[in-house]
Amino acid sequence: MPVLVMKFGGTSVATLDRIRRAAKRVGVEVAKGYDVIVIVSAMSGKTNELVGWVNETSPLYDAREYDAVVSSGENVTAGLMALTLQEMDVPARSWQGWQVPVRTTSAHSAARIEEIPADNIMAKFAEGMKVAVVSGFQGVSPEGRITTLGRGGSDTTAVAFAAAFEAERCDIYTDVDGVYTTDPRVSPKARKLEKIAFEEMLELASLGAKVLQTRSVELAMRYKVRLRVLSSFEEQSDNAGTLVCDEEDIMESNVVAGVAFSRDESKMTLVSVADRPGIAASIFTALSEGGVNVDMIVQNISEEGRTDMTWSCPTDQVARAEKAVADAKAQGVINFHEVIADTDVAKVSVVGIGMRSHTGVAAKMFQVLSAEGINIKVITTSEIKISVLIDRKYMELAVQALHDAFELEKAA
Amino acid sequence: MPVLVMKFGGTSVATLDRIRRAAKRVGVEVAKGYDVIVIVSAMSGKTNELVGWVNETSPLYDAREYDAVVSSGENVTAGLMALTLQEMDVPARSWQGWQVPVRTTSAHSAARIEEIPADNIMAKFAEGMKVAVVSGFQGVSPEGRITTLGRGGSDTTAVAFAAAFEAERCDIYTDVDGVYTTDPRVSPKARKLEKIAFEEMLELASLGAKVLQTRSVELAMRYKVRLRVLSSFEEQSDNAGTLVCDEEDIMESNVVAGVAFSRDESKMTLVSVADRPGIAASIFTALSEGGVNVDMIVQNISEEGRTDMTWSCPTDQVARAEKAVADAKAQGVINFHEVIADTDVAKVSVVGIGMRSHTGVAAKMFQVLSAEGINIKVITTSEIKISVLIDRKYMELAVQALHDAFELEKAA
Repeated sequence: MPVLVMKFGGTSVATLDRIRRAAKRVGVEVAKGYDVIVIVSAMSGKTNELVGWVNETSPLYDAREYDAVVSSGENVTAGLMALTLQEMDVPARSWQGWQVPVRTTSAHSAARIEEIPADNIMAKFAEGMKVAVVSGFQGVSPEGRITTLGRGGSDTTAVAFAAAFEAERCDIYTDVDGVYTTDPRVSPKARKLEKIAFEEMLELASLGAKVLQTRSVELAMRYKVRLRVLSSFEEQSDNAGTLVCDEEDIMESNVVAGVAFSRDESKMTLVSVADRPGIAASIFTALSEGGVNVDMIVQNISEEGRTDMTWSCPTDQVARAEKAVADAKAQGVINFHEVIADTDVAKVSVVGIGMRSHTGVAAKMFQVLSAEGINIKVITTSEIKISVLIDRKYMELAVQALHDAFELEKAA
Repeated sequence: MPVLVMKFGGTSVATLDRIRRAAKRVGVEVAKGYDVIVIVSAMSGKTNELVGWVNETSPLYDAREYDAVVSSGENVTAGLMALTLQEMDVPARSWQGWQVPVRTTSAHSAARIEEIPADNIMAKFAEGMKVAVVSGFQGVSPEGRITTLGRGGSDTTAVAFAAAFEAERCDIYTDVDGVYTTDPRVSPKARKLEKIAFEEMLELASLGAKVLQTRSVELAMRYKVRLRVLSSFEEQSDNAGTLVCDEEDIMESNVVAGVAFSRDESKMTLVSVADRPGIAASIFTALSEGGVNVDMIVQNISEEGRTDMTWSCPTDQVARAEKAVADAKAQGVINFHEVIADTDVAKVSVVGIGMRSHTGVAAKMFQVLSAEGINIKVITTSEIKISVLIDRKYMELAVQALHDAFELEKAA
């Protein structure tokens, strides 16, 4: 029998009613002839409650105990899902991470999956079991302790099972019905994509389109797992949702797949830095050690041995960044006149694998923004992405204008 | 290092504050030089919530999935307790049942512990760990599935660990401060017992004094585990609570240790049963197959080949009992004129190992009840117990009068 992996997130299993609805979807796939592996999250809110208890008990907690506590929510939904399927006469049983076992590294609360032996579950499929319900987000370390994969880890569990079982597809059921050309709340013309390439999805995921955990997309890309994102709250046809797949599986595509944005960005500039070899390393080592996630970096042209260094980071890390550079200055590691933080910026990006073969995308993007009177503060580019920092007040305008200009409302 | 087992019930770990209070008690014992095994229940209410979800999902549930779901609450408190102890600089870690492993039978939701290897935890004690926090109520079957021991099973887990680790004592922290001569809400003269013999505790436990799970007392008796029942809500001295121990460890004791009672009893009588060999077997087989837990049984003197058969059972099983005997009559298995149910009765018992060597306890009990004008409806006796059924309205009066007559307010 072909194997299908189906993953249900927290909102899709938030109540017994929703678990029933999800189980019906599973029943539909079983009826088609699949052996199904269901990956479940905890009921929405449960993991947050457990994390809250751990933080209140022990602010600098032992991550091994954190994992033992916060992994319990998934086990509850796994058992309830198995019972619901049994009530529908679908042969099913639950598996906790250690029972499979999902072998991970010992990096508690941020573990990586190393191996998922398929023999246990395949033997049960051979005996007539139709559905293996597996607790997402968790595994077991070489020392036999329970591990978790970090928040959103159930997506990664699902993709790892799809790879280990050579599943035909990995369906991620969530509270949105697919991946859009941009956020429909910002641009009413946003269109659901039928297909998107892994690389594009990765750029969109890390740029703030919160549909899939980034790591799960990386893993899917590496093992060529066909990922489908679809809604658990709608009746589904066979080609519902968005398929995230290898670019070879996409016959035609727009040059630009989507417009992503991030509101919570700030731009920081160190003014008049003494320009010498290694200065960039010194600055960004200091920021990294201070726990600042630097995104874009721009170094202005030097004048008379001094330069300005600009970067962007999440707005809630600005204070941390200011402290980090002030400390480094006090230690004599770096030297600058002042640090300026602009917390009223946003990042807007256009993403598309078509950029590799089409020129002029950047030029067109800049023209569109210019025509709207939007000033560009920082630019960075990758092979399939162009990002700009602009004043936050223009963010919606920029997204809509770019969406129109690249005609994203039309399918390729 | 000597090993001590400490068990905290659901009310003792109901909140993070209470877990902290319990952890402080553990810290006191560690400071005395013990290696401590802490057994925890789920936060009070949590297991009921999980059981409710299972029942709503699947009324005739798969007990293996029931166990997977309802065992999760203990894992949360075990992790939180370990973290709390670590915050107090007490080296501690949590162990789930399968990690120890607590090997049980495959009788899901009513499993029995078969083996608890001590080597894993002892090795950690040898490395300097001071406290092993273990999830109560759960284990793992030979098939590698999670099992539970039945409600109240954490007491049994605690006693089993005390036996396996040859612990000096097993302290059961609960919401009462010990075992009393009777329920203080019924008799204000009730006195807390310093010590009580296993046999007496067994009779009291099964008679409705809901302090300890019956199985845990049986297990403690078999392995001579010294059990102490005490309150987690009071400051404790070394001889607080009640010690449940071998009768040889009790130097002096009253003839009667306590007065137990049960409100929810009913008396049923089959009137004019054809008296022939095997008739009792037929009646009680029918009741047993009908799911009726028969307690006391009395057969009246036969007259002219007919007899009356009387028994007691929990009041909520009366309808079931009526159906069982009516069905048996319809099938011609038994024959009787009518069945009478008296649902306004209560059971009162006096319990004490001293009865073995002292005569006249029964006579005194009957005199006391007679002097109060209380009619005795049924009597049963065992080696260390005399029970009577009386009208429920006299129950409190009977308990108080017996408590006075046997001078239970005075220590031996």
